[in-house]
Amino acid sequence: MATSSAPTDPPARTVAHKLIADHLVEGEMEQGSEIGLKVDQTLTQDATGTMVMLELEAMGLDRIRTELSVQYVDHNLLQTDEKNPEDHLFLQSAAQRFGLWFSKAGNGVSHPVHQAHFGRPGATLIGSDSHTCAAGALGMLAIGVGGLEIAMAMAGQPLYVSMPRIWGVELTGELPDWVSAKDVVLEMLRRHGVSGGVGRIIEYHGEGLAQLTAMDRHVIANMGAELGATATVFPADDAVRDYLAAVGRDDEFTRIEADAGAEYDLIEHIELSELEPLIAAPSSPGNVVPVAEVEDEEVFQVVVGSSANPGLRDFAAFAEILDGQEADSRVSVDVNPTSREVLADLVGGGWLTSLIGAGARIHQSGCMGCIGMGQAPAAGRNSLRTMPRNFPGRSGTEEDSVWLCSPETAAAAALTGKITDPRTLSESHGIGAPRPQLPDTYSRIDRMLMPPLPVEEAREVELVKGSNISSLPDFAPIEDDLRAPVILVMGDDVSTDEIMPAGSRVLPFRSNIPKISEFTFTRIDPDYPANAAGAEGGHVVVAGKNYGQGSSREHAVIAPRYLGLRAVIAVSFARIHWQNLANFGILALEFDDPEDHDRIATGDEVSIDGVHEALAAGTSLTARIGDREVGVHHRLSPRQVEMVLAGGRIPLAAREV
Amino acid sequence: MATSSAPTDPPARTVAHKLIADHLVEGEMEQGSEIGLKVDQTLTQDATGTMVMLELEAMGLDRIRTELSVQYVDHNLLQTDEKNPEDHLFLQSAAQRFGLWFSKAGNGVSHPVHQAHFGRPGATLIGSDSHTCAAGALGMLAIGVGGLEIAMAMAGQPLYVSMPRIWGVELTGELPDWVSAKDVVLEMLRRHGVSGGVGRIIEYHGEGLAQLTAMDRHVIANMGAELGATATVFPADDAVRDYLAAVGRDDEFTRIEADAGAEYDLIEHIELSELEPLIAAPSSPGNVVPVAEVEDEEVFQVVVGSSANPGLRDFAAFAEILDGQEADSRVSVDVNPTSREVLADLVGGGWLTSLIGAGARIHQSGCMGCIGMGQAPAAGRNSLRTMPRNFPGRSGTEEDSVWLCSPETAAAAALTGKITDPRTLSESHGIGAPRPQLPDTYSRIDRMLMPPLPVEEAREVELVKGSNISSLPDFAPIEDDLRAPVILVMGDDVSTDEIMPAGSRVLPFRSNIPKISEFTFTRIDPDYPANAAGAEGGHVVVAGKNYGQGSSREHAVIAPRYLGLRAVIAVSFARIHWQNLANFGILALEFDDPEDHDRIATGDEVSIDGVHEALAAGTSLTARIGDREVGVHHRLSPRQVEMVLAGGRIPLAAREV
Repeated sequence: MATSSAPTDPPARTVAHKLIADHLVEGEMEQGSEIGLKVDQTLTQDATGTMVMLELEAMGLDRIRTELSVQYVDHNLLQTDEKNPEDHLFLQSAAQRFGLWFSKAGNGVSHPVHQAHFGRPGATLIGSDSHTCAAGALGMLAIGVGGLEIAMAMAGQPLYVSMPRIWGVELTGELPDWVSAKDVVLEMLRRHGVSGGVGRIIEYHGEGLAQLTAMDRHVIANMGAELGATATVFPADDAVRDYLAAVGRDDEFTRIEADAGAEYDLIEHIELSELEPLIAAPSSPGNVVPVAEVEDEEVFQVVVGSSANPGLRDFAAFAEILDGQEADSRVSVDVNPTSREVLADLVGGGWLTSLIGAGARIHQSGCMGCIGMGQAPAAGRNSLRTMPRNFPGRSGTEEDSVWLCSPETAAAAALTGKITDPRTLSESHGIGAPRPQLPDTYSRIDRMLMPPLPVEEAREVELVKGSNISSLPDFAPIEDDLRAPVILVMGDDVSTDEIMPAGSRVLPFRSNIPKISEFTFTRIDPDYPANAAGAEGGHVVVAGKNYGQGSSREHAVIAPRYLGLRAVIAVSFARIHWQNLANFGILALEFDDPEDHDRIATGDEVSIDGVHEALAAGTSLTARIGDREVGVHHRLSPRQVEMVLAGGRIPLAAREV
Repeated sequence: MATSSAPTDPPARTVAHKLIADHLVEGEMEQGSEIGLKVDQTLTQDATGTMVMLELEAMGLDRIRTELSVQYVDHNLLQTDEKNPEDHLFLQSAAQRFGLWFSKAGNGVSHPVHQAHFGRPGATLIGSDSHTCAAGALGMLAIGVGGLEIAMAMAGQPLYVSMPRIWGVELTGELPDWVSAKDVVLEMLRRHGVSGGVGRIIEYHGEGLAQLTAMDRHVIANMGAELGATATVFPADDAVRDYLAAVGRDDEFTRIEADAGAEYDLIEHIELSELEPLIAAPSSPGNVVPVAEVEDEEVFQVVVGSSANPGLRDFAAFAEILDGQEADSRVSVDVNPTSREVLADLVGGGWLTSLIGAGARIHQSGCMGCIGMGQAPAAGRNSLRTMPRNFPGRSGTEEDSVWLCSPETAAAAALTGKITDPRTLSESHGIGAPRPQLPDTYSRIDRMLMPPLPVEEAREVELVKGSNISSLPDFAPIEDDLRAPVILVMGDDVSTDEIMPAGSRVLPFRSNIPKISEFTFTRIDPDYPANAAGAEGGHVVVAGKNYGQGSSREHAVIAPRYLGLRAVIAVSFARIHWQNLANFGILALEFDDPEDHDRIATGDEVSIDGVHEALAAGTSLTARIGDREVGVHHRLSPRQVEMVLAGGRIPLAAREV
C-alpha cells in the first residue's frame, strides 16, 4: 500500500536451497551459521546401529518420532562366531520395539534398498553411514552423521549442521562408449581430491543430466562422501519419475528443480563427452588417473558390487562384457549383488548365468569387502573394485593394493588379468560397449523387509540381548565439588584412534561398553583401565593441543566415561570429539595459560568447587591441581552446559521424552 | 591232472572285495592284516592341501605319479585378511608345478565336483578330507586319510590300511513321501552311533537301491565318515550309468556289482518304506531321533548345502517347498549352492528365483558353515543344517545348538520357525511332497577347473609363497649318540590337542611351521617353546600312557620336531600319533619298566650311544637319564626304522624319488 511497485519476485533458488528451506526449524541460511533441520527419515546399519538402539533404550524412548526409520543389516554378515548373529537378533527386536522398519541380514546394502523402497523427492534423510548421501540422487537432502545424531532425530530433535556452500556442477554433453557414471565422480575426485567438497553441498545440473538414470546419479551422489561433501543433490526430474515408476512408487514423485537463474556459491563444469575411463590408484579415492596411463599392471582380483555401483545396470554391463568369455586364470572375480532384488533381476535377465559361466564367485548381498568383511586380497596384489574407498588396509589386508573403477574397467581387467582400458576390448575381444536392456519394472521383494509393529504390539517386545550386548550404562551428572586424581598426562594431537583403537580385535565389542572399555587409552598407557578402576570417585586426564583429532567415533568418549572419566583439561580440542565429550557429560576444560599443561603430573589431585553454578554462570573456573591454583575455562553453549549438568545428551533427552 | 574234478568256481565277491582285489599290491585280504593298495586318484582341499604341497616340495617330486590328482579350494573362502587368498595363489602355483588339476576358490565343494568331473567306477581315490568316502556312490573305493599319505601316493607309493570287514546293508522297499537319502544314513547313525562303522567298509545293496540316484547315494556315502567307516561303497549300476550320462561322461561307465551269493562279514537290513524324517540333535551326528519327537523347538537358522546334501535335487526339493511361501521372520535361511554348476542349474530350473523370493540368503559355493567358515548361529539358538557334523563349537559358535537333517525337514523349519515334521506341511500349508523335475543333463562349467600343465611347462612354474607360507623345514636324522635334556615330563592321556591346539587363533598358520610351532605344548607348559630354543642340540619329552591320543593332525609332530624334539619316551603311545612320530623322524621309545616314568625330572640329561646301530639291530636300547640307566624299547617296523634314520618319511621318499 505504501508503494505501487510490483510485488518482489521470490529469489530464484537451487534444489539444495529449496530442500533446506523446507526443513529449516532453527537458524538462518547464512553460510557457516548453525541451522536446525527437521529430519523426515533415518537409516542405520548394523555396525553403527546397535549403539543407536542402546541409546534409544537409555533415553527411554517409547516410539520413534520420525516419519520413517529403517534399521539395515548389511555390514557384519560373515558370522564367524555368535557375535554378529546375536547383534542381528538384537537389532530385529529393537526395530520392533521402537517402531522401525527392519531389513534382515542378506536383504541388501542400505543405500540402494532405501532408495528403492523409501526414497522420496523432497525428504530429508540422515544415516549413521557416511554414504547416506547417495539418496541425493532422488532429490533428497541426505546426510551421513554419527549415531547419537540419529538417536536424537528419532526422538524428534532437529539435525544441527553448519549452513554449507552450494556447489553447482553443470554437466553437458553425453558420455562416450565405455565411460559411465563412476567416471563422472572419479573426474570430480581427480580435479578436487578427497577434501574438495568439505563444507559444501554438491548440486548437479545441466542438460547432461538427461542421460543419467536415477541409479547413475546414485553412483555419483554416493561418492560425494569421498569428496568430503556435506551432501550431494540432484533434481527430481523425469529420470526420478521413471525410477519411481520402475520400483512401483509413481505416486511418490514430486518434481523439484532449481529455479531459472538460481545462483550457486561455486561453479563447476564437466563436459561428459570429454571423459575417459578413470581409476583411483592405491590407496586413496583421490589418486585418480586415466586407466590408459596405468595399463598392464597385473590384476589378481576384481570385485563388483557395493553401494558405489549398486544398480542392476552396473552388474548387467559387467555381465554383458563377460558373457561367453573366460576370466583370466589369475583373477578371482567376486560379484556381490547389492540386494536380493538385484540378484533376482540378474537371474531374470540371464546375466547371472553369464557371470557364473565366465567364472565369477557369487556372494551374498551386503557390503562385504567394501568394509573388509570378506574377500580380502593377497598382500601387494592388485585388486580392482567398483567400491567407493581404498584406504590402506580397509580391504582387510594390511598391505593391500586396491584400485577403484567402473564396472566396465573392472570387466576389462577380469578378462585380461591386467589393468586395461575397456575401450580396447572392441578390438582385442570383439566386444561392443555394453548396453544392457533393463526391465521396465524392477523386482520388488518385501519378504525380508519387516514393517514397524503397531504401537501396542511394539510395547510388548523385549530387547533380545546376546552375551556380547550390554545396555548403555547410566552416567551420573558431574559432581558439584569435583575431587579426582589426574591419571594420564598426554602431549599434543592425541587421536581418537589412540583413545579407543578400532580393528577386528576391538570392533566385535562395539555393543559392549564394559568390554570395549578395556582397550581405552591402552596404546598410550596399558595401565589406564586398571588405574581408572583404582580411582573410585572418578578421574581426570590432561592433554596438549588438538586433543581428540581423527575419527568421530563415540566409543572414544563413552568408554573412558564408563571407566570414570569426569573431565579432560587440555590446551585445545578437536571439534567433533569436543562435541562428543559434551554429549556424554564429560567436562572439557581448556587451560587459560597453556604453560600450565607442563606443570601437571600423573597423581596430582584436581579439586574444583561449585562446578554446577560456575558452568551456568560463565566460562571461567578455578581448579586446584596438586598444590597450585590453575585458571581454566570452557566453551560450552548453554545447551551443552545443560547436557553436562544432566550427565549427557541422553539423560537430558530422557527427561524431555 | 592229478584229479578229474570240475574247475573250482572263483568265490562270489562283493563290490568292496572286487575293488580291493583290483588294487592290491601288498599283503593278503585277511581281515585285520595290513594291505597295500594302488592309488589311482587323490584329492586335497585347501585346509590340508598347503601342507601336502609343501611335503611334495620337500621330497623334491618333479611330477605326480597318480593317474589324476586334484587340488580344490573350498574351505577357507572368507578372506578376512591376506592369508587365505595367498594360500589360494600358492595352491594354484603348486598344482601347476606338480601336475595336478586345480579347482579355483568358489568353484565348489571338492566331493561333488570331483564326482561330477572325475568320478570313475572301479577307481581308488584317497583324499585329505574325511568325507572323501562320498565317492563310493559311483562304485569307487574312496578313503579319507592324512596329508602325508596323499603326498606319498602322489609320489607313487601305495596306501597302507588294515583290511576292513565288509558290512552288507540291504535296502528294500521305497522311501515314503517327505523322506529322503539323508534319512537313510541318519537311520544308520540312529542304530549304530558314531563308531558303528569303525574298521568296516559299508556296502549297500538290494532292490531298494533302484530308487536312489547317484547323488542320493553320495549323501549316504558321505556320512559313512560319521559312522567311522573306512569307506562306503555302492555298486556301479544303472543309476551310476545315468549319472555319468547326465554329466557328459557316459564313456567312463563300467558296471561293477556284487556277484550272486557274495557273502558279507556283517549283515544289516533297512526297509525304506518304514523310515520317517529323522534328525541328529545337538551335538553329535549320533544323537538321532525322529523329527516328530522334537517338534516345536524354536528355530533361528536353517542352512542348506555342504557335501552331505550337495545335489541339485536337494536344493531343488528345498526350493519347491519354499516356492511362493515366506520364511518365518525369526529364521535366517542360508543357502550355499555346493558348486557353480549346481548354482547354474538352480537358475535354469527357476529354483533360485523361488529361494530368493522366499527370503533365502545365497552364499558363494564352498564348505562355509560346515567347517565354521561363516554363518555361525547365535549361542544357544537352534540351527538346522543339512550338513554332516554338529560337534560342539564346529559351527564357529562355542555354545552352539546345531541339528542335522534332510532338506525337507530344513524347509519345514524355515516355514514354521520351529522344528516341524515335514509330513505335516501338506495339511498346514497345502504343500505336496517335493518331486523336482531334474534336467537330463547337468550344467558343466570347466572355467574354474584348470587342467595340469604339460611337464616342460610345469617345471618352469615357481611356487608363489605369501608371507604366511614357509617351506617345510629340513629335518636332520637323529644323532647316533643322542645327548639331550628332558624339558617336559607329562602324565597319561596327553592328546594332540594339548600338543598343538587347533582353533581360529592357530589354524591360519597351518602353512607356516615356524609360526605355528610357537603354540606347541603351550597348554601344558607355556615355556616349552622358549625352553626348546634354549636346548640347542635338541631335547626329549617324557610322557605316561596313551601319549598323543585324539586328532591325527601332523602339526603335533612337525612343530615340536621343528623346535628340536628328538625323542619321546613314554609308557605307551596312541596309534596314529606314534605313526606320525616315525613319519617325521622322531624316536618313540617305551619304558621297559613303566615305573621309571616317575623317576625322571625336567632337566635330566638323556644319553643314548650308538642309536643307529641299536635301532637296526633290535628293539632294546639303554638310555642314561640323569644318573640312572633306564631300559627302553621301540616298536618300529624295519621300514619305520629306515624312516627315522633318514630323518623321516619325506627325506626317505626324496631319496627314492
